[in-house]
Amino acid sequence: MSVSPFWNERLRALDPYVPGEQPRDRRYVKLNTNENPYPPSPRVLEALREAATADLRLYPDPGALQLRRAIADRYGTVPERVFAGNGSDEVLAFAFAAFFGKRSGKRELLLFPDLSYSFYPVYAGLWGISYKRIPVTEDFSIDAADYCVPAGGVVFPNPNAPTGRALSRAEVLSIVDYHRKEHNVVLVDEAYVDFGAESVADAIADYPNLLVVHTLSKARSLAGLRVGYALGQEELVEGLRRVKDSFNSYPLDRLALAGATAAVTDAEYYDQVNRRVAATRDRVAAALAGLGFTVLPSAANFLFVRHPDHAGAALFAALRERGILVRHFNKERIAEYLRVSIGTDEEMDAFLAACGALT
Amino acid sequence: MSVSPFWNERLRALDPYVPGEQPRDRRYVKLNTNENPYPPSPRVLEALREAATADLRLYPDPGALQLRRAIADRYGTVPERVFAGNGSDEVLAFAFAAFFGKRSGKRELLLFPDLSYSFYPVYAGLWGISYKRIPVTEDFSIDAADYCVPAGGVVFPNPNAPTGRALSRAEVLSIVDYHRKEHNVVLVDEAYVDFGAESVADAIADYPNLLVVHTLSKARSLAGLRVGYALGQEELVEGLRRVKDSFNSYPLDRLALAGATAAVTDAEYYDQVNRRVAATRDRVAAALAGLGFTVLPSAANFLFVRHPDHAGAALFAALRERGILVRHFNKERIAEYLRVSIGTDEEMDAFLAACGALT
Repeated sequence: MSVSPFWNERLRALDPYVPGEQPRDRRYVKLNTNENPYPPSPRVLEALREAATADLRLYPDPGALQLRRAIADRYGTVPERVFAGNGSDEVLAFAFAAFFGKRSGKRELLLFPDLSYSFYPVYAGLWGISYKRIPVTEDFSIDAADYCVPAGGVVFPNPNAPTGRALSRAEVLSIVDYHRKEHNVVLVDEAYVDFGAESVADAIADYPNLLVVHTLSKARSLAGLRVGYALGQEELVEGLRRVKDSFNSYPLDRLALAGATAAVTDAEYYDQVNRRVAATRDRVAAALAGLGFTVLPSAANFLFVRHPDHAGAALFAALRERGILVRHFNKERIAEYLRVSIGTDEEMDAFLAACGALT
Repeated sequence: MSVSPFWNERLRALDPYVPGEQPRDRRYVKLNTNENPYPPSPRVLEALREAATADLRLYPDPGALQLRRAIADRYGTVPERVFAGNGSDEVLAFAFAAFFGKRSGKRELLLFPDLSYSFYPVYAGLWGISYKRIPVTEDFSIDAADYCVPAGGVVFPNPNAPTGRALSRAEVLSIVDYHRKEHNVVLVDEAYVDFGAESVADAIADYPNLLVVHTLSKARSLAGLRVGYALGQEELVEGLRRVKDSFNSYPLDRLALAGATAAVTDAEYYDQVNRRVAATRDRVAAALAGLGFTVLPSAANFLFVRHPDHAGAALFAALRERGILVRHFNKERIAEYLRVSIGTDEEMDAFLAACGALT
């Protein structure tokens, strides 16, 4: 179907993202899309039920002000420095549309790691942005120095996905600082930061070229609600708003706004949940090492692992056969690895038992 | 702020859409954004409350299959001919991205009415699509013959907004038929069709170049839930999916999916609600004519009216002063008109009383 006469040149050139599998054929121990194994805060569910009223006949607030205020309060900033969108994927899509690519008198090339979120090259394709993939090091780390080179912009996740490895705050800020003078936006995608890495969210006060993106899908147990946000100075937030209002003025529905506001304000519940996920991760990492796996150090809610004696594809298939779904990327450099989301302790014990039997 | 060094060339060139006012300064009789005055079906609210569960920790179905099945059943087609998105605005944005603009060996120019949904030129700007606005006739009708000319594509609402005037099914299909041979997509935006115009949704079976877009915001009383959809043959739906998966794979959250599915399947409730809105519209149109207003014939849930002795801007301001909010477009040809959404009978009586006092 790649030659439909109805498709324009943009569409023909697209190479869309492939979302992680949401299986329906049987019940799996689902460790493939980095969802949180614990439910959203009870206050979130209550807020959602309370928002299911006749008021749904009315448009939501296109400016999402109440939610942006709650986020601003949490990060010690102002709503004018917060942008909210339909999942961090939409926020990222808007950021690529707004800040990367052609700027008069500036370089164009966008830099991101070769092993990273696979949506980045897709966004670049959609918006026609030239980019260069910077190889991660031998041990799958991002080397900050590789990004301190003339370019038009930088994007990377911290911690990185699918590796789980994190940069320190000082390393991240060294990249931001390098690009400050040229007004190049450095987008730090902190989707997994709350599981154990250092956020630079507060550094937006110091760096007008820093945009930090968060999601409620992982550390707020709300992948099903589709809310993400960005923190940055006014010129960046205003730029995102202008793209939004050229695309879809009301991306957040009334329920998502209510639920997200409740989630952002219930730090206590989520701190507890995420400490538990991190503790399980560390226990599973040690157990896998005991089984002979190579386990990358992870600051996220997943582990990136390989076994020296078992091919990645074969192990993926054998686990699936046993009802355990993990993620395997059939790509250069990482074809022997599996990305394993952290589930409940019970789910991870089932995973470890399967690994023990298979290796 | 139009010269931020962070903004790329695309962003600097944007001229964003301005959403209708969602006032918070006082309580208005709100007749400015064409919302339905009646609440969503009780089954919708129940489905939403039931969907507020721990499952929100999991991603929604990126393919929205259950919802697309329900829509397909309603229109006597198959899910492969249905695309669902985050409001019809997002569906329109994707359609512009996919089908309009540069196609190899084809004309590029997109045609739409000069008086029409003001988001169309914004989308065209975002995606770099050349377009031509075709003036509506003296009486604010769309003349189908004006669109049966060589071009790259066509988009118009039926009924049109802000005029409320509808084309007949035969007129719409004459445009679709003309553009069939050149594989030009004709996008019929039927946001308001259920209030009294003829839908061409079933004609997708006959016309591979026809894309029909609907929203749940108006005739399903769900402006606050953000769900829209498109009906078209497989090549069009697949094209929309590819743009979606290059932008945001999960635009519909679990609650929106559940609520929308319930709405689409409760035809009985909504048929009753929308007949009531249409009856109120016809009564108000007659009463306004009695007050000396010029009232365009409307097949939508709003009226487009002017008074020969009162300037549009002045009447808008005077109504607002009295707590009644309507929409005024300060634009060529229509600056003397007001667009008045149809509210409850009580709200419309308040509006009529104010009009009586002011004219």
